Amino acid sequence: MSEPVQLIPGNSLITATPQEGRELAIKMARLIIKVTQPDAEIREKLRAVYAEDTAMLIAVGQTVATEFATIAAANNYWR
Amino acid sequence: MSEPVQLIPGNSLITATPQEGRELAIKMARLIIKVTQPDAEIREKLRAVYAEDTAMLIAVGQTVATEFATIAAANNYWR
Amino acid sequence: MSEPVQLIPGNSLITATPQEGRELAIKMARLIIKVTQPDAEIREKLRAVYAEDTAMLIAVGQTVATEFATIAAANNYWR
Amino acid sequence: MSEPVQLIPGNSLITATPQEGRELAIKMARLIIKVTQPDAEIREKLRAVYAEDTAMLIAVGQTVATEFATIAAANNYWR
Amino acid sequence: MSEPVQLIPGNSLITATPQEGRELAIKMARLIIKVTQPDAEIREKLRAVYAEDTAMLIAVGQTVATEFATIAAANNYWR
Amino acid sequence: MSEPVQLIPGNSLITATPQEGRELAIKMARLIIKVTQPDAEIREKLRAVYAEDTAMLIAVGQTVATEFATIAAANNYWR
Repeated sequence: MSEPVQLIPGNSLITATPQEGRELAIKMARLIIKVTQPDAEIREKLRAVYAEDTAMLIAVGQTVATEFATIAAANNYWR
Repeated sequence: MSEPVQLIPGNSLITATPQEGRELAIKMARLIIKVTQPDAEIREKLRAVYAEDTAMLIAVGQTVATEFATIAAANNYWR
Repeated sequence: MSEPVQLIPGNSLITATPQEGRELAIKMARLIIKVTQPDAEIREKLRAVYAEDTAMLIAVGQTVATEFATIAAANNYWR
Repeated sequence: MSEPVQLIPGNSLITATPQEGRELAIKMARLIIKVTQPDAEIREKLRAVYAEDTAMLIAVGQTVATEFATIAAANNYWR
Repeated sequence: MSEPVQLIPGNSLITATPQEGRELAIKMARLIIKVTQPDAEIREKLRAVYAEDTAMLIAVGQTVATEFATIAAANNYWR
Repeated sequence: MSEPVQLIPGNSLITATPQEGRELAIKMARLIIKVTQPDAEIREKLRAVYAEDTAMLIAVGQTVATEFATIAAANNYWR
């Protein structure tokens, strides 16, 4: 049996700093794309597309913002 | 009478870990698509479309992020 | 005077289980479309469109996720 | 001086029932469109467009869901 | 050195009424567009575009709904 | 080894005023685009695109609204 894909590095939403929380949000957003499109070669092509497409870059930003909202709440906003 | 479609595996938002919460978010997002388009063959075709379409992969990620926000709150962020 | 359209079955956000909460979210999302486009025949045509359009299926999923977030909070996440 | 456009009927988020909360969400969403496009004739034309466009009907549903989340929280979910 | 653009009139999220909260949400949404596109003439042209485009009017409504959710929470929903 | 990109200026969500919170939201949204498209020249071209495209300007506003919601909660809404 194949191992399940790791969807949250460290299997925790708790991070030491906002910067690390932000990095986690980016990774979590990318891992959903990875699990939906497991072929690394295709993903590489798609990445080339969205890195030069303004609308998609903004959409990526929206997803990261949503993931980060959850992570920030989990960490009591690092107050 | 046909059985209702299962929309939340285990009929609970509580999971042991963030990883399992993330897996639940993915399943919940997919089950909404299943109930809206019950034909498995058509779904398979549509899946082939979005797995190679960057904008749709990002949109899937946005939905999963929204589902996960709810699951994470339900689990008090696994603190 | 015509009766107002029922927008929330049972006029309550409280449900016995997460599964029922999810079913309520789907119904609430559909009832907004019904009230915006009251013609059943046109709705039937539009439904045929979005059931075979990947981007729209994903968008429906996003709306259901948003409705469900509210319902889940109303039910204290069925903890 | 012209009177300001009424953006929230009754100037309150509190409603007696979830049904009334849902109706308020729909009105609030429409009033934003009204204030952005004050010409009633143009609005009528645009309305004809979105009532027969699946993607736009879904987008309207997303906005109503977001407004309703705020109204539901304001009313402690009518628990 | 140029003064920074005012992004929140009054530099506060607190308002006397829901109506004023709604007006603030509209202004905050517009000020983001202003700071992203500082040229008033171009903005005027873009405004003419979105005031007659249904999809964009709905998108403006979505943004205002999101800003308003924050303002409403800040004001404890004017309960 | 290259230094990690700074994703949150000051590595904190806490700001003195709503205005500063809003400025932070704009910066955080931009830094996600920067880390996704590290080439400054390409970013400059993309920026020229979205500054004159109404739909993208609205989408940027949506992302900033989402980031700001998190920052506002972190600061207890500067009450």
